[in-house]
Amino acid sequence: MDVKVGFVQTSPMLGEVEKNVESALLLASSKEADLLVFPELFNTGYLFLSKDDLAKVAEPIPNGPTTERLMKFASEHSVSVVAGIAERDGRAFYNSAVIISSDGDYVGKYRKLHLFSTEKLVFEPGNLGLQVFDLGKIRVGVMICFDWIFPEVARVLSLKGAHLIAHPANLVLPYAQTAMLARSIENRVFTITANRIGCEERGGKKLCFTGKSQITSPDMKVLTRASEDLMEVGVVSIDPREAENKNITELNNLWEDRRPKEYYILTR
Amino acid sequence: MDVKVGFVQTSPMLGEVEKNVESALLLASSKEADLLVFPELFNTGYLFLSKDDLAKVAEPIPNGPTTERLMKFASEHSVSVVAGIAERDGRAFYNSAVIISSDGDYVGKYRKLHLFSTEKLVFEPGNLGLQVFDLGKIRVGVMICFDWIFPEVARVLSLKGAHLIAHPANLVLPYAQTAMLARSIENRVFTITANRIGCEERGGKKLCFTGKSQITSPDMKVLTRASEDLMEVGVVSIDPREAENKNITELNNLWEDRRPKEYYILTR
Repeated sequence: MDVKVGFVQTSPMLGEVEKNVESALLLASSKEADLLVFPELFNTGYLFLSKDDLAKVAEPIPNGPTTERLMKFASEHSVSVVAGIAERDGRAFYNSAVIISSDGDYVGKYRKLHLFSTEKLVFEPGNLGLQVFDLGKIRVGVMICFDWIFPEVARVLSLKGAHLIAHPANLVLPYAQTAMLARSIENRVFTITANRIGCEERGGKKLCFTGKSQITSPDMKVLTRASEDLMEVGVVSIDPREAENKNITELNNLWEDRRPKEYYILTR
Repeated sequence: MDVKVGFVQTSPMLGEVEKNVESALLLASSKEADLLVFPELFNTGYLFLSKDDLAKVAEPIPNGPTTERLMKFASEHSVSVVAGIAERDGRAFYNSAVIISSDGDYVGKYRKLHLFSTEKLVFEPGNLGLQVFDLGKIRVGVMICFDWIFPEVARVLSLKGAHLIAHPANLVLPYAQTAMLARSIENRVFTITANRIGCEERGGKKLCFTGKSQITSPDMKVLTRASEDLMEVGVVSIDPREAENKNITELNNLWEDRRPKEYYILTR
């Protein structure tokens, strides 16, 4: 069963929500796919220095303009979507991802559990746990950017049945692309890291994002990887059932071989 | 504080315990070090097809000839040792590692928790848990070969205070060297993978071991890596205190940022 899955590597401009969304969707429409993953905060840009700043562009999920626009796009193109959005919920802000089905229906949202650096000054840590979403052809676990460094995250999502980890990101450190290879083999899952490109400079702070969005397979192959400086869509055909086979050898099954009692310290 | 740590990449011959130990120690004595890690089953070779087979070479730990020889070596060279040995305990066999201080004292042993492939036919799974050993200059967590694929193992050892993960191995798959880079950055620890080279052929089964022993740093650098086909000693100077700093950014500490309640499924 072939499922076409991909990333959309964009270059958002800080605060320019409508332009960012439209240019990302124009780019996304250049390739046919069953599932597309967009970067973290793809609609707003990244470098918010205050909650006032963020309040101007954060939206409710699902009843905000970006989610609604993505639902329309998903329905028109019969493509499921996972996309990073700045979420407003009452007076709280979350670094969230929205999940939309290929019928254009709202499926759910994830709020980033592990906030990076100054994100802590403007966003609340996620409070919806780690979730796997059934998108019909494929079960997708969602994590956002810095979640990658905590091996527990991809592990939990995989144990909960994810075929694929959708990983919207705004990476500034050089490590995640390598670590995601480990996430793939240690869990025998596919991963899609949808990163952005470009730089943002503000309040004496400059961040450059590293591109190299990638898709990895349960046997630790890089199925495709983007450049570090171009807007790109990468799509590959995968068979999600590959990720249901947790056997590394005839006698080794990744799940059956675990020794949970020896790991007790991990949840204390 | 500089500590010289290294691997000894050997090429044991199946069943030739005395020759294997002496050639490994000759090789090891070519470089000065504070800690040396030897491969999995470095004294016996790997491909045991029956317990009868294994019974001929497995030894008690610490009261067996290989441990005693290593203690003498450690004392003479003032070097701590972690080495993979086939252990006999009554009628049970374990794929173990012995840990010896630079004074030549027996410190402890680890029994491999996650057995690989046909190891399951001859060895019992480890029953001593995951342990960190204080070797004076450095705290060392020990895991063996296939343990690498379970991110829980390095995580538990790191949470228990390891500066460095000593990883005796007999690797036949191509993944571990990359995954160990992830282990380093996700836990901010040093790792030493001491792999072997050469092939073993027996009972219609042939295994070739992949060499490329390596040492990695808490910031995901490969400090040194061996060839895939030569006997080699690799030694680097490290400061263990680097691994005590779990900060990734000023606002991100790997331990404080964990969300253990969200990981509950890992220990069920």
